[in-house]
Amino acid sequence: MNIPKRTRREFVQTTSAGLGAALVAIQAPALATACASKPDRTIGFALAGIGKLTTNEIAPALKETKHARLTGVISGTPAKAKSLAQAYGVPQSNIYDYETMDRLRDNPDIDVVYVVTPNALHKEHTIKAARAGKHVFCEKPMAVSVDECEEMIAECRDAGVKLSIGYRCQYEPHHLECMRLAREEEFGEAKIIQAGFGFRLTDRGQWRLRRDLAGGGALMDAGIYALQACRYLSGEEPIEVAAFETKTDLARFAEVDESISWQMRFPGGVLASCSTTYNARKLNRVRLYAERGWFGLEPAFSYRGLKGERLDGKPLRFNYVNHFAAEMDDFARCIIEDRDSKVSGQEGLRDLLVIEAIYESIRTSRPVNLA
Amino acid sequence: MNIPKRTRREFVQTTSAGLGAALVAIQAPALATACASKPDRTIGFALAGIGKLTTNEIAPALKETKHARLTGVISGTPAKAKSLAQAYGVPQSNIYDYETMDRLRDNPDIDVVYVVTPNALHKEHTIKAARAGKHVFCEKPMAVSVDECEEMIAECRDAGVKLSIGYRCQYEPHHLECMRLAREEEFGEAKIIQAGFGFRLTDRGQWRLRRDLAGGGALMDAGIYALQACRYLSGEEPIEVAAFETKTDLARFAEVDESISWQMRFPGGVLASCSTTYNARKLNRVRLYAERGWFGLEPAFSYRGLKGERLDGKPLRFNYVNHFAAEMDDFARCIIEDRDSKVSGQEGLRDLLVIEAIYESIRTSRPVNLA
Repeated sequence: MNIPKRTRREFVQTTSAGLGAALVAIQAPALATACASKPDRTIGFALAGIGKLTTNEIAPALKETKHARLTGVISGTPAKAKSLAQAYGVPQSNIYDYETMDRLRDNPDIDVVYVVTPNALHKEHTIKAARAGKHVFCEKPMAVSVDECEEMIAECRDAGVKLSIGYRCQYEPHHLECMRLAREEEFGEAKIIQAGFGFRLTDRGQWRLRRDLAGGGALMDAGIYALQACRYLSGEEPIEVAAFETKTDLARFAEVDESISWQMRFPGGVLASCSTTYNARKLNRVRLYAERGWFGLEPAFSYRGLKGERLDGKPLRFNYVNHFAAEMDDFARCIIEDRDSKVSGQEGLRDLLVIEAIYESIRTSRPVNLA
Repeated sequence: MNIPKRTRREFVQTTSAGLGAALVAIQAPALATACASKPDRTIGFALAGIGKLTTNEIAPALKETKHARLTGVISGTPAKAKSLAQAYGVPQSNIYDYETMDRLRDNPDIDVVYVVTPNALHKEHTIKAARAGKHVFCEKPMAVSVDECEEMIAECRDAGVKLSIGYRCQYEPHHLECMRLAREEEFGEAKIIQAGFGFRLTDRGQWRLRRDLAGGGALMDAGIYALQACRYLSGEEPIEVAAFETKTDLARFAEVDESISWQMRFPGGVLASCSTTYNARKLNRVRLYAERGWFGLEPAFSYRGLKGERLDGKPLRFNYVNHFAAEMDDFARCIIEDRDSKVSGQEGLRDLLVIEAIYESIRTSRPVNLA
């Protein structure tokens, strides 16, 4: 496994560029379009997997995008596919199932497959899309292991298609402002991060509770947001991680993790303390403490209603942006302008690397070195 | 070492009793006095150690107490002692230094010695007071090691004097309400606690930066509040702890810890994530996440201005209570009524047990089992 390490400087540069691009996309789409090489082109997205996220968030978001539109549906359930297609004016001929994805190659309406299937199927569906010559936008977590991530990256590279991961917070102005505050050290050097994301999962029929589909529990699904935030706020990769797990409902959480706390040491000296759970309500925040003060978000990781706070009382407040529209528009522009997404497969892989270390720490009852 | 373990049930009972007593002391002193066996008696406190805490908080608080009054001063600096004594009308004859503490035995004005000296001197001054037949109220941390705590407990027991530790939050209504919410499971079972206390220490002349006087750094001084809070909110003793330390200013923090993150696993399934630092501003909060919601405080551990919040928006707000007056009044009433303080030496010892485990985890790069 050969993963390029980011230095702090590289982080500053890439995030800065990405932030600029994202802010342009969010705040001045008209301007951005004017600058784009193919201003009139929109990118066709096919949604693979029709659950609540697709129905309630992603498909509606494609009505708000400037550069992306819904042109295809991929599902193993024909009735669901038909219903979604009808609702969004997608022609019958652009409906596929997971067995017919190779035929996407022949459909010029579809540029991107957005993989919204359960975690453990991301790899298979990403590879199928790539082999059909389609760019891939894959929901987080990218996959259920580092090995899978590497395979996905290699397949997309070999197929000459772009790959980006659905880390919507990287396109959200509250998070972008937190990145800026951290990067520019507006409160001095960062020392401590506290973060957590979790909620109560009571529906026992959820695929999220099945190891074969989810690959993991609260950490894989919710904790990953806190983990990501620590990485993009510190601007570094963790060099050591230690984790504890507890289960209080052995029946409900027989197959996946219920609650995990973990801490990460970053090379510049930041210590991050994080928690995740499927069994408590509204754990949803991130806060960075620096030499001269703190800033953070709560709620931090919801689809809407994010609120920021700074110790100095200055506003950390932005108008609502549809996270899904923002991320899809950015990926569409990457395709139009033929550049890589700032949230590439490497970014998804790096989180999985830490997630694997967290599970290893739990399994071995030891801290795990990542340096 | 033989430390009695508390079960959850014992916690509920003892804290419940303590909470009742404290609320009586805080909210209805007149009633409490009427019930006391010696209503007219007030307890004489001698303050040992004259730093900012004594001058700015504890001595002034003794003007607000109902059952306690300032009757003596103990200091190694005669000018400071004289000045404080004059300001509070303490007679010259009630001034002592650390070499003459044995003569306290002959002074009936003084019932209690409140030890406010640097951490590493707590043991010596506690034992001197106990041997002079005086009750001891000792600032947190109780001492710099579990062994010292045990020695202090044994000495006070042998001398037939009471010993209590200055955990002021245990007498503060916001914290008492949080204990009640946790104990009565108003939001269901607790799953996650996040807590932290830290501030920026820039004065290099501080005794807190000297290992021989402080025994430790941010953890010993500030982190202990977060640790205590996790213990009294979970109502349990941690069974496992894992910690990381970082130093970013090796000169300033050559002798003591700058920043530490640690996590604790509790037997009932609660996971606590905590941070402490001497190098970031206003890390000062505690939050408990349970099945149906959360509650917590920020600022949580300041002398004044505490603010509470509950997910359901109901108020968690109380009028200001002088923490130091409340804790000294409670100890005075313990003496008047001849009962033990709810915050005994055992309580101080239990925190040191965890603190030693945290330092051991840092030293050995492994989690430490406390079960």
